[in-house]
Amino acid sequence: MTAAFVVRLATGRPDDVGALASVPPELLRGVRAVAGKTEGNGCVNDFSRALASLAWAGAIPTPVVTVMSGGTEGVLSPHVTLLGHRPDNRPADGPAGGLALGTAVTPVIPPSELGRRPQVDTVADAVREACRAGGFPPSSAELVLVKCPLLTSDVIAERADEVITHDTYDSMARSRAAAALGVAAATGELDGTGVDAGLAGDTDRWSSVASTSAGAEVSACHVVVLGNAPAVHSRLRASHAVMADAIDAASVQALLAEVDAAGGRVVQVFAKAEASPDGAVRGRRHTMLTDSDIHATRHARAAVGGLLAGLVGEPAIYVSGGAEHQGPPGGGPVTVVWELG
Amino acid sequence: MTAAFVVRLATGRPDDVGALASVPPELLRGVRAVAGKTEGNGCVNDFSRALASLAWAGAIPTPVVTVMSGGTEGVLSPHVTLLGHRPDNRPADGPAGGLALGTAVTPVIPPSELGRRPQVDTVADAVREACRAGGFPPSSAELVLVKCPLLTSDVIAERADEVITHDTYDSMARSRAAAALGVAAATGELDGTGVDAGLAGDTDRWSSVASTSAGAEVSACHVVVLGNAPAVHSRLRASHAVMADAIDAASVQALLAEVDAAGGRVVQVFAKAEASPDGAVRGRRHTMLTDSDIHATRHARAAVGGLLAGLVGEPAIYVSGGAEHQGPPGGGPVTVVWELG
Amino acid sequence: MTAAFVVRLATGRPDDVGALASVPPELLRGVRAVAGKTEGNGCVNDFSRALASLAWAGAIPTPVVTVMSGGTEGVLSPHVTLLGHRPDNRPADGPAGGLALGTAVTPVIPPSELGRRPQVDTVADAVREACRAGGFPPSSAELVLVKCPLLTSDVIAERADEVITHDTYDSMARSRAAAALGVAAATGELDGTGVDAGLAGDTDRWSSVASTSAGAEVSACHVVVLGNAPAVHSRLRASHAVMADAIDAASVQALLAEVDAAGGRVVQVFAKAEASPDGAVRGRRHTMLTDSDIHATRHARAAVGGLLAGLVGEPAIYVSGGAEHQGPPGGGPVTVVWELG
Amino acid sequence: MTAAFVVRLATGRPDDVGALASVPPELLRGVRAVAGKTEGNGCVNDFSRALASLAWAGAIPTPVVTVMSGGTEGVLSPHVTLLGHRPDNRPADGPAGGLALGTAVTPVIPPSELGRRPQVDTVADAVREACRAGGFPPSSAELVLVKCPLLTSDVIAERADEVITHDTYDSMARSRAAAALGVAAATGELDGTGVDAGLAGDTDRWSSVASTSAGAEVSACHVVVLGNAPAVHSRLRASHAVMADAIDAASVQALLAEVDAAGGRVVQVFAKAEASPDGAVRGRRHTMLTDSDIHATRHARAAVGGLLAGLVGEPAIYVSGGAEHQGPPGGGPVTVVWELG
Repeated sequence: MTAAFVVRLATGRPDDVGALASVPPELLRGVRAVAGKTEGNGCVNDFSRALASLAWAGAIPTPVVTVMSGGTEGVLSPHVTLLGHRPDNRPADGPAGGLALGTAVTPVIPPSELGRRPQVDTVADAVREACRAGGFPPSSAELVLVKCPLLTSDVIAERADEVITHDTYDSMARSRAAAALGVAAATGELDGTGVDAGLAGDTDRWSSVASTSAGAEVSACHVVVLGNAPAVHSRLRASHAVMADAIDAASVQALLAEVDAAGGRVVQVFAKAEASPDGAVRGRRHTMLTDSDIHATRHARAAVGGLLAGLVGEPAIYVSGGAEHQGPPGGGPVTVVWELG
Repeated sequence: MTAAFVVRLATGRPDDVGALASVPPELLRGVRAVAGKTEGNGCVNDFSRALASLAWAGAIPTPVVTVMSGGTEGVLSPHVTLLGHRPDNRPADGPAGGLALGTAVTPVIPPSELGRRPQVDTVADAVREACRAGGFPPSSAELVLVKCPLLTSDVIAERADEVITHDTYDSMARSRAAAALGVAAATGELDGTGVDAGLAGDTDRWSSVASTSAGAEVSACHVVVLGNAPAVHSRLRASHAVMADAIDAASVQALLAEVDAAGGRVVQVFAKAEASPDGAVRGRRHTMLTDSDIHATRHARAAVGGLLAGLVGEPAIYVSGGAEHQGPPGGGPVTVVWELG
Repeated sequence: MTAAFVVRLATGRPDDVGALASVPPELLRGVRAVAGKTEGNGCVNDFSRALASLAWAGAIPTPVVTVMSGGTEGVLSPHVTLLGHRPDNRPADGPAGGLALGTAVTPVIPPSELGRRPQVDTVADAVREACRAGGFPPSSAELVLVKCPLLTSDVIAERADEVITHDTYDSMARSRAAAALGVAAATGELDGTGVDAGLAGDTDRWSSVASTSAGAEVSACHVVVLGNAPAVHSRLRASHAVMADAIDAASVQALLAEVDAAGGRVVQVFAKAEASPDGAVRGRRHTMLTDSDIHATRHARAAVGGLLAGLVGEPAIYVSGGAEHQGPPGGGPVTVVWELG
Repeated sequence: MTAAFVVRLATGRPDDVGALASVPPELLRGVRAVAGKTEGNGCVNDFSRALASLAWAGAIPTPVVTVMSGGTEGVLSPHVTLLGHRPDNRPADGPAGGLALGTAVTPVIPPSELGRRPQVDTVADAVREACRAGGFPPSSAELVLVKCPLLTSDVIAERADEVITHDTYDSMARSRAAAALGVAAATGELDGTGVDAGLAGDTDRWSSVASTSAGAEVSACHVVVLGNAPAVHSRLRASHAVMADAIDAASVQALLAEVDAAGGRVVQVFAKAEASPDGAVRGRRHTMLTDSDIHATRHARAAVGGLLAGLVGEPAIYVSGGAEHQGPPGGGPVTVVWELG
């Protein structure tokens, strides 16, 4: 069992790995995952994700799982977060119950399974495997990042009869949904009935720790889990909350108050954002779903990113759009990695 | 001297004036200004502003000054705020020093003057006139809304030698800048030297209460001022703060704490937002100025709108983009209208 | 029976009706329809259409049917085309078989009927009525313009169980489709079985003269028909062709060759454009359906507009996007109004 | 002296090099340049170009010059064109005067030189070198492709005093302009006085064979020239025309008529497109420069791409946006590579 480390690096463009030079070699050898925000549109034709994945996977000496999420709207700042195992795990490094990390990669998701129960089950298995590797039960995971595939237009054309949707943008939502339900199945937040209800469109079935994003640059699902493991000595911790809607500052402030109360310091934030599907926030009409110039996911990242960056005083945070079955409709999970004071 | 009232109405589309039916006739007769957020792109080809101006000016029985600001990105909700004079002003209505309103309209701004000193001076005169009408000195204005013209492409083509810029989008920024400097001249925040320095590009010359927006639907400048007047009895108050950057939650929280301390309740919020011109927020690179798909003003409204809506718990607030000389670079003024507890 | 006239007027903005001053009063009194291209995005939140409808309907002294189509991408130039009845119809005005015009407005289309058989039947009735008024049988119509409603997000929210789709952008396509099938029913191009097959998704059921566009500014369908009537003496004619795909220059060149052969001169062009739903043009992949920054209808108008403007040497033509059941998939009808030499 | 070959390959995404498998190894060894159209926005934050450059330069066994141009709006189809030397050059391969190819890469363009005379001179030298390698004088070049750098926001921030503009999008135009003037200097179309006038803003100074595009993926200029060389035996030829405006079908039809007259077959087309800077095409107002949702270069590529694809019956052609000093204002050069019948 080893302790996890978390290092945030600024990027000047998607393929800018220059900041790696600042990472000590002994840490670099332990890197297992790279979670990044890149400056594309975060939608179907966002090639900044693929470019970043290629550059970062190539620049890190160990095999890594990459989770590149497109879209740094508003104040959000492009960056990557390296997640890895520290070289040692000694009592002197901090109290037990410290931050631990696990990763896993699923087999390739066949187009016919995307957005359906088999994808859910495949992701659930990978989440269980990653948590086992991390040394904590899935039920106590504080964050489950999943990068999952989408259906490209050529795949849709070739397999029109098999696939769940004929719209590429919609396939991103379907894949995120199935991956999130897979997380909820692994953590025990949903049973099989709940998963099927979720797949059938019940938006009240969700995970409080899932953060899934879709991209054409993967054909399998990449899974990264963070939790606090009994056997890990570390000053790092992860804690999560759930925003009830896109302007739920109170839930985030309560989470930050816990960190403050422990004399802690926020190291990084991971959050999901979405446009409330009922077209309103606290009863006020929003226009994110009827704007034909800017996709709703871009609006949502900008707004929630602005709120979270303001509350934590940091724009280089991970805010990902499209929160199907990740928190309640219009809301989403927020996980803070922090260091004890 | 009369007390001001402030009524917020939701809109279903730019020309939806249906909510007017809920306004008592005695208030309706006192309306002097309509400040709205409409759901266009807030840039050059945003015709939602013209449509809303036409509809609202036609639906209100008295002559009104309209300030329609385009862009309800993220969680921001389309609405209008009616600003008017209450029928009476009695001691029983509240303590002295209550909310007062003034309006003015400048002569037409000739294209050759747009963005230059004559526009500044013309706006300053109108601000002084509006404050006099409101019953408070310009130096104690809490909010000065200005709607100002832009240069359309046909005007640029016809008068290429006279105009300050050949780019329509840039002309919006120039017009907002000159209007804001005019506000600062009227309030005494800047003298003539400061105004000229501002026009010459010194971004450190600014007003803390100006909120200016440009649109093709006006050829003159529309001015609306709010302040607290000694002779006004009312439970309503206006107070302002200045955000130092786009994630300056602390300044807003301090302002809201004052309202809380007085047992008050927020009625409406007016704020400006912009992408920091140096390309960074708190040292972190932002991508608002290099996104060729979404204009920077749209990004900024979405982000600051998300933060403010979260802090006050209300998405139907007035957040306008492009804050040249309105607060420091990358930041902007915030005015809260509130009611004593 | 009266002869029709066609007058094209340039516009400086959607509500610019200034060019009306150039229209002789005796023509102005005969105007029955205004078909315009406005410079919005042509999608859900395009308020340039509503603004233009309001301005033009208000500026013309007679009641008119307005068909405002948003989107002047690429070289397309904003303009309106006035369609009306000439004051007289004498043999000296030209050979028989000249251009005739008819208009009709359907009852309001209830949200539950939008995109379904009742909308089809309602439109078919209106087309028959308009052709009767024009003095030619529906089977010889050369152009049938229809402006039809869409489902707004508030209607979708209120009537979620009744409506055919929960997506506003999709509702535009559904409404255009039903209107086009209604045209095909009236002209005899489709029978009831064909209409039902079309509604069920068979894209090979289409009209060769329909041009339908959707917008939030109407709640009924506006119908305008053009044809050549035996009893009309005029030098004006209308002729149509069908583009087999978005780059089918040959069909258009053949149509223009007919005009040339008669020594004629093109007066105006009306065309439909769409992104081929199979993702390819002549076997080459296009990216119109996977571009998350620009909607496919905007791409298609720009491309087909560029081709047609080049072939006829005129950018102020009517090219409308979204050609469901209007010509074959990826193609669309083109109608030319021309004057004998 | 060797003959050139031209092979067009379809791509499924920017980094899809799968079609290379269809290229015979003996041709593959001769590839010297890859000119591609990728499906990004073609503007500042288009990372599809960098991804394609990386993938194609890596997949071709020889060192190659890459010219990736972003933006496949409308019907344009993503593809790459391989340009190379054939293994032999025998009289039996065709008449003398056949297609020849030359390439060159300039030194890195320092930010302070971008858009200024030193960039012009550097490009001119590289064009001369490439033509020499191709075996034809610069004055008879039929196409000069240049990929040139832009100014990124961090470079602008670091070197604000040195650089020619503080706007990244504008820096693309400046770099394209200087590169095009460099081409004109090499071909003899402009002398030093003409170049300086061009740099000073005289848009009537231009090259009829330049096609320049800017991107963040290069720091030097990549130059590729095509011409017909006396010593080359080949059935391939290149011919160029100049479009006078964006709808100048006649010039293109005349060029295609020459090919037809020789019984030839079009192999590939290279063209430039731009929004007429005076805001009109043939006296009709266009909206490309006032659309705040879509950049003008995207509009222009879509429109001109639609026209050219229609005229040649092929959507996988190279149409690049931003034609500063490449043909007259609003127009641009068109080069056709064709095979004798």
